[in-house]
Amino acid sequence: MDVGIPGVNEILQGGIPRRNIVLLSGGPGTGKSIFGQQFLYAGFRLKEPGILVTLEEHPVQVRINMDHFGWEPREHEQRGLFAIVDAFTAGVGESARRERYVVKDPEDVQSLMEVVKQAITDLGAQRVVMDSVSTLYMTRPMVARATLMLVKKVLAGLGCTGLLISQVSVTDRGFGGPGVEHLADGIIRLDLDEVQGELKRSIIVWKMRGTGHSMRRHPFEITAKGIVVHPDKAVRITPRGWAEA
Amino acid sequence: MDVGIPGVNEILQGGIPRRNIVLLSGGPGTGKSIFGQQFLYAGFRLKEPGILVTLEEHPVQVRINMDHFGWEPREHEQRGLFAIVDAFTAGVGESARRERYVVKDPEDVQSLMEVVKQAITDLGAQRVVMDSVSTLYMTRPMVARATLMLVKKVLAGLGCTGLLISQVSVTDRGFGGPGVEHLADGIIRLDLDEVQGELKRSIIVWKMRGTGHSMRRHPFEITAKGIVVHPDKAVRITPRGWAEA
Amino acid sequence: MDVGIPGVNEILQGGIPRRNIVLLSGGPGTGKSIFGQQFLYAGFRLKEPGILVTLEEHPVQVRINMDHFGWEPREHEQRGLFAIVDAFTAGVGESARRERYVVKDPEDVQSLMEVVKQAITDLGAQRVVMDSVSTLYMTRPMVARATLMLVKKVLAGLGCTGLLISQVSVTDRGFGGPGVEHLADGIIRLDLDEVQGELKRSIIVWKMRGTGHSMRRHPFEITAKGIVVHPDKAVRITPRGWAEA
Amino acid sequence: MDVGIPGVNEILQGGIPRRNIVLLSGGPGTGKSIFGQQFLYAGFRLKEPGILVTLEEHPVQVRINMDHFGWEPREHEQRGLFAIVDAFTAGVGESARRERYVVKDPEDVQSLMEVVKQAITDLGAQRVVMDSVSTLYMTRPMVARATLMLVKKVLAGLGCTGLLISQVSVTDRGFGGPGVEHLADGIIRLDLDEVQGELKRSIIVWKMRGTGHSMRRHPFEITAKGIVVHPDKAVRITPRGWAEA
Amino acid sequence: MDVGIPGVNEILQGGIPRRNIVLLSGGPGTGKSIFGQQFLYAGFRLKEPGILVTLEEHPVQVRINMDHFGWEPREHEQRGLFAIVDAFTAGVGESARRERYVVKDPEDVQSLMEVVKQAITDLGAQRVVMDSVSTLYMTRPMVARATLMLVKKVLAGLGCTGLLISQVSVTDRGFGGPGVEHLADGIIRLDLDEVQGELKRSIIVWKMRGTGHSMRRHPFEITAKGIVVHPDKAVRITPRGWAEA
Amino acid sequence: MDVGIPGVNEILQGGIPRRNIVLLSGGPGTGKSIFGQQFLYAGFRLKEPGILVTLEEHPVQVRINMDHFGWEPREHEQRGLFAIVDAFTAGVGESARRERYVVKDPEDVQSLMEVVKQAITDLGAQRVVMDSVSTLYMTRPMVARATLMLVKKVLAGLGCTGLLISQVSVTDRGFGGPGVEHLADGIIRLDLDEVQGELKRSIIVWKMRGTGHSMRRHPFEITAKGIVVHPDKAVRITPRGWAEA
Repeated sequence: MDVGIPGVNEILQGGIPRRNIVLLSGGPGTGKSIFGQQFLYAGFRLKEPGILVTLEEHPVQVRINMDHFGWEPREHEQRGLFAIVDAFTAGVGESARRERYVVKDPEDVQSLMEVVKQAITDLGAQRVVMDSVSTLYMTRPMVARATLMLVKKVLAGLGCTGLLISQVSVTDRGFGGPGVEHLADGIIRLDLDEVQGELKRSIIVWKMRGTGHSMRRHPFEITAKGIVVHPDKAVRITPRGWAEA
Repeated sequence: MDVGIPGVNEILQGGIPRRNIVLLSGGPGTGKSIFGQQFLYAGFRLKEPGILVTLEEHPVQVRINMDHFGWEPREHEQRGLFAIVDAFTAGVGESARRERYVVKDPEDVQSLMEVVKQAITDLGAQRVVMDSVSTLYMTRPMVARATLMLVKKVLAGLGCTGLLISQVSVTDRGFGGPGVEHLADGIIRLDLDEVQGELKRSIIVWKMRGTGHSMRRHPFEITAKGIVVHPDKAVRITPRGWAEA
Repeated sequence: MDVGIPGVNEILQGGIPRRNIVLLSGGPGTGKSIFGQQFLYAGFRLKEPGILVTLEEHPVQVRINMDHFGWEPREHEQRGLFAIVDAFTAGVGESARRERYVVKDPEDVQSLMEVVKQAITDLGAQRVVMDSVSTLYMTRPMVARATLMLVKKVLAGLGCTGLLISQVSVTDRGFGGPGVEHLADGIIRLDLDEVQGELKRSIIVWKMRGTGHSMRRHPFEITAKGIVVHPDKAVRITPRGWAEA
Repeated sequence: MDVGIPGVNEILQGGIPRRNIVLLSGGPGTGKSIFGQQFLYAGFRLKEPGILVTLEEHPVQVRINMDHFGWEPREHEQRGLFAIVDAFTAGVGESARRERYVVKDPEDVQSLMEVVKQAITDLGAQRVVMDSVSTLYMTRPMVARATLMLVKKVLAGLGCTGLLISQVSVTDRGFGGPGVEHLADGIIRLDLDEVQGELKRSIIVWKMRGTGHSMRRHPFEITAKGIVVHPDKAVRITPRGWAEA
Repeated sequence: MDVGIPGVNEILQGGIPRRNIVLLSGGPGTGKSIFGQQFLYAGFRLKEPGILVTLEEHPVQVRINMDHFGWEPREHEQRGLFAIVDAFTAGVGESARRERYVVKDPEDVQSLMEVVKQAITDLGAQRVVMDSVSTLYMTRPMVARATLMLVKKVLAGLGCTGLLISQVSVTDRGFGGPGVEHLADGIIRLDLDEVQGELKRSIIVWKMRGTGHSMRRHPFEITAKGIVVHPDKAVRITPRGWAEA
Repeated sequence: MDVGIPGVNEILQGGIPRRNIVLLSGGPGTGKSIFGQQFLYAGFRLKEPGILVTLEEHPVQVRINMDHFGWEPREHEQRGLFAIVDAFTAGVGESARRERYVVKDPEDVQSLMEVVKQAITDLGAQRVVMDSVSTLYMTRPMVARATLMLVKKVLAGLGCTGLLISQVSVTDRGFGGPGVEHLADGIIRLDLDEVQGELKRSIIVWKMRGTGHSMRRHPFEITAKGIVVHPDKAVRITPRGWAEA
C-alpha cells in the first residue's frame, strides 16, 4: 500500500502490505502524528478512504494541523474520503453537534472500537490511524496487550491497514513494551536524537510482515509539505548525547 | 508570539505560535521560573495581559523575585496587565485579604482551573504560566495525563498561550513522563550540567507545533536583567560529569 | 532431530535432541515465528507430524504467513502432518466452525494443554511449537515458572520435541526471566541489532542438553524460502547502537 | 549572610541571601553536619542567634561534636545565641529535664515545627539548621514535598535563613528527589568521591536565589577548625570510582 | 572433601571443607546441574553416599542426564550410594510407585526437608545437592533467607556437605540476593559469557570458609566425561558482549 | 581504641574513637565476620571484654571459626572477656542449655537488645559486634532506620564501641541504604573485586567521627592469623570486571 511519504515506499520495498497492523513508535516531537496524517492524505489521492481516531487532540486542532501541510481535511471529509473519530472531547462542548463520530467514554475500549467500526463501514475505509494507542493503556500497563489485541482483531476483521501510534518516553529505546511490540505486524520507529548538541531525525523499520524492507536507519526532515525520508542515505548515531543517560 | 527573552525568538523562528501549550522542562536551578516570568514581562510591554499561577512560591516572594530583575509586577498588576493566581497559601494568612485570585484547595485541579479561568477572563489574558504543573500530580503519577489534559483544554478553550513548568529530577533526561510529554504542543528544555567541574546552562527546543525551530542546543546565561540566550552559539555537552551517573 | 533450517543442524551438531523442550527467545522482528513454522515444515517432509499452538495470531493469518514461504499448511493439514491449535480466537467467529482444535479460554493453561494433548495424540505429533508461551504469563510473572513447568511436563510426557517461543523486549538481553530460562533443556536466541545504523540478524545457541553445539554467534538472513543461517561465519556485535541505551 | 566557612562566602558572592531556605545535600561522611554547625557558629560571633534541630543525634553528642571543633555550644547557649531543639530523644531519659526544647513526637511534623517556632521566637533566631530533614519523610516519600513545604512556610514566615540537611545515598547523584529539590531557594551539594582509590571532598552550589554564585566545583577539607573551602581551586572528577557503579 | 571435578580441588586448595554449605551460582546453560551430579559421582567412587534433591527435573530425566556422562546413577542407587529425592513430580504418575523419596508438596519447605532428612539418615549421606534452591523462593523473595536458613540448619545438623544450586538470570552478576549470599559458607560461580561473539565458560570461587582458594577466574569445558577446569589458566573477560547491556 | 588488626589503627590514625557506632559494610566473602572477631580478640588481649551478637551463624560454628585463627573463644569466655549472644538458634536444640545468652525471638529487636544489654552489663563489655544488623531489617526496609536507631541508643547509652556488620549485595556500591548510612558514626567498607579475572581485597574508611583517617583505599589479605591491611599501599580499582555490570 502506497504510504505516500516520499522515500518510505522505497525503504518498505513498495509500501506497507495491506491489512498489516503497524506500530508507529517514537518519543515526543518525532513526527508521529504528521506521519499518520500524511499516510491518510496519500489515501485521499488514491481514493482510499481513511479514518483518524484522535485520542489526544481536539478534532478542530487536528484539522488545523493538517491544513498547515495543505492536506485539506474538510474537503476530503465532504467527499467521503476522510473521517475523524473524536475520542478526545467525550462529546462535551460543540463537538457533540459538529462531529459525526464521537466516543462518549474513550476509557471504554469496547465502545471506542464500536464507533471506529461504524466509521470504517460508512466510508469503506482502508486506512486507519489511531493517535495514540498508548493513551488507551498508559495508566493500565496490564491491559496493554489485551487492548491492542482487541484493536488488531477489529481492524484486521474489517480488512483495514492500521497505523497505531505508540508513544514512548524520550529515554526509552523500546517500542511500547513486550506485550505490544510482538502483536504488531510491523514496527516503524521515528527518532529524534541529540547528537553533539544537534537534533537529528531518523526512521528505521524494525519489522514488516509480508515484505522485505531496508535494514538501515534513514534520515528524514519535516518540511512544509510533510515528512521527506531519504532512502538513499543511512545514518549511524553514536554516541548520542541523551542516549548516554 | 514574542517570547521576550533575548535569543529565544530566533531559535523559535519568530516565537511561540499563539495558543500553543508549551512544556518548559528542567531540573532544579535551571532557570524555569525566571523564564516564565520574563515571558510574562514581554507580554506587559506588548499590552498582552498575563497570568502567573504560583503553586510552589508565596505570591509575595514571586513579586520580590520579579522585582529583582526589574519586571515591576505590582505596577503591571495595577494596569491590569498581570495577575497572580495564588495556589500556594490556600488563602491562609494575609493572602486571603491581599490576593485577588486565591485557590482554596490547590489539590483540587477542577477548582484551581476555575480560578484560572476567572483570572484569564477578567484580564483578557493571552499568556498563562503555571509554576509548576508537576506539583499537581507529583505524588499521583497516574493522574498526570488527565490533569494536563484538563489544563490544556481550559487554556486552549480560552485562546491562551500557555507555558507549563515541568520539574524533573536532576538526573532525569526526560521531560516529565510519557503521559505529559506527548500532550504538549511544544517542549523547551533548560539544562544545567556539570561539565568537567563547571556548571553550564543550555536550552534546546525539542518540539514546537506550528513553526520550525533551531535543532541545536544553545548556551544561555542568567543576568541581572534575566535570561539571555545565544542563538548563534551551539553547545555539545559530552561527557557530562553527572550525566554519566 | 533435523531442524530443517539451513545451517542450524550444523551449529547444533546434528539438530535438536529429541524430547528436548527448547526456548526460542528474541525481541520483536527477530524471526521467531518463521523459525518455528520452518521447523514444523521440516517435519512435514520427514513425515513427522507437528502442532502449532497459535496464541497471538489468527489461524488464517498463520496459514497465509506459511504460504508466503511456500510451506503449504493446508496440504499438510489434510495429510495429517500438521494441525493448528487455535488459542487466539477463543472460538469466536467462523473459527469455531472451521478450526478443529479450538481453545475456549486461552487464559486457562490447564484447558489449553488439554487441547494440545488431544491434537498431539490425534496426529502422533513429534514436534510442537507454541507461539508464544510468553503470552501465557506476560501479565502474571509470578506464575511463569509454574506455567512453563506444566507445559514441559505435558510435552515431555507425550514424547514431543517442543519449541517454545519466548518474547522479550527489544532492550532485554535475557531469555524470559530466571523462572523460565532454567527450566528449558535448550535456549536458542535470535537477535536483531542496530549496528552503526544497520540492522543485523544473528543466532546463538546458549544451551542445548544432550548435544554439543557451536559456541559462536552466527549471522542469518530471512529469505523468500525462510531462514538461512551461516554456520561458517561468526559475528561479534559491539558496540550496538541500541545496546548502549 | 556570612556563612562563616572559609571560602564559602566567596563562592556565594557574599553569602547566603537572608531568608533563603537552602538544601544542603550530600551522602554519608561528606561533612553536612559540620557545615551546619559551623554556619551556626558564624552566627554566634555575629550575635545572630541560631537553632539546631537535631533529629538523628543526641543533643549531648551534638555538643561534644561542636566542642571538638572549638565552637563552645554551651557558652553560646548560656548567652542566648544558641539552642538545640531535641527531636531525637523524644524526651526519654535525662533529656526531658536537661533540654529546654524537646519534641515529644518527632514523627508529628506539625508539633515539631511548633517547638521550632517557640525556640526561634525565644532567641530571636536568624539561623536555623535542621539535621536532617530527610528523616522526616525517609520512609514516607509521598509526604516529602508537603513536609518541606510546611518547614519552608514556618521558617520563611519567621524571617529565618534555613539550612536543611538532606541525606542522599552514596550512589545517588540527586539532591533528595524532585518534590524537594524544586522547593528550596538554594541547593548546596557536598561530595565525597573515590577517585582512583583516593577519597576527595568537593562542594558545588547548584542553585541560589537572589545572588550569583560560582559555577564551579571546589575542593574542601575538614580541618581541626572545621571546613575550609578553596574558592580559587576547581576540580573535575571523572571518572569516579563509585560513580561508575 | 574431594570435589571430583578435574581442576576444582586445585583451585580450592584441597576441595570443599566438610560440612560447608556452598552456593553454586550461575545463569542458564552454565553447567550447574552437571557440576552437582559430578560432585555426587565423586562421592560414589569414595564410598561417600550422596543425595540429589531434584526440584526442576523429572527423576527419570536426571538419571538419563547422568548416564549421558557415564555416572551410572541406578547402579549407585542399588549400592546405597545414591538417592534421588523427587521434589518434582509431587508423587503424580508412576513416580509415586517407582521413587523411594517423594515430596508430596514441594512448596512446603518443612516437609521437603523432612524427606531430605530421612534420605540422608537412610544412606548415611555425606553429600547433598539441591537443584535448585532458587525454586523454593523464586516467587517469594521475602522468604529466601528464612528458607535457606532452614536448609542450612538441617544439612549442617546432620553433618553433610551441601551444594545448593542458585539460579540467576543471564544478566545478573550477583549470586542470588543479599539474603542468600551471606548465609552460605562458600560461593562458587559458573559463568557463560559471550565474548566477541563467542561463548566462554569460566569458574570463580568467591568465598570458601575454612580454606584458602584461588583468587582467579579459570576457564572450563564441558566434555563427554563432565566438567574439566583448568586451574593453571586464568581468564579475564572484558568487555563482554552481553555484560555491556 | 586499638582495633587490633595490623594496619587498621594506622589508617584510622590511632583506631576507632571510643563509643563510636561503626558500620562495617561489604558484600559476601569480603571478610566482615573475620574483621569483627579479630576486633574482639584485640579486646581480649587488652582486657576489654567484648560481645558478639550472632544472627546468622550457630554459636558453635562461630567458635570453630575463631579457633581457626587461633583466637581461643572458649578460654576468653571463661575469663569473662568474651560472650556470645545467640540470636541464631532461638533457643532450639542444645543451645538453650549450653549458651548463656539466648534470644528467644530474634525478630523482636526490643527483646534482642534486652539480652545484649544484660550481656554488656555482666561483662562490663566495651566492644560489641553485631553480625549482622542487616538481618534485622532485610525483609523490612521501612524499619531499617528505626532498628538501627534503637541499637545505637542502647550501645551508646552503655558506653560501648560498636561494630555493626552490614551486608550488601555483591553488585551494590552503597553501605546499606540512606536510612542506615547516615546514622553511623563511622563507615568502613570491605571490598572484593574481580579485576581482570583476579579477586582483589581492599578496605576504605568512608567516614569516622572524632578522628582523621586515611582517605585512600588500601589492599588487605586474609591470612592464617586473620586480616592484614597494608596502610602504606593504596589501590585504585578501575575498571572492575563486575562493577561494569
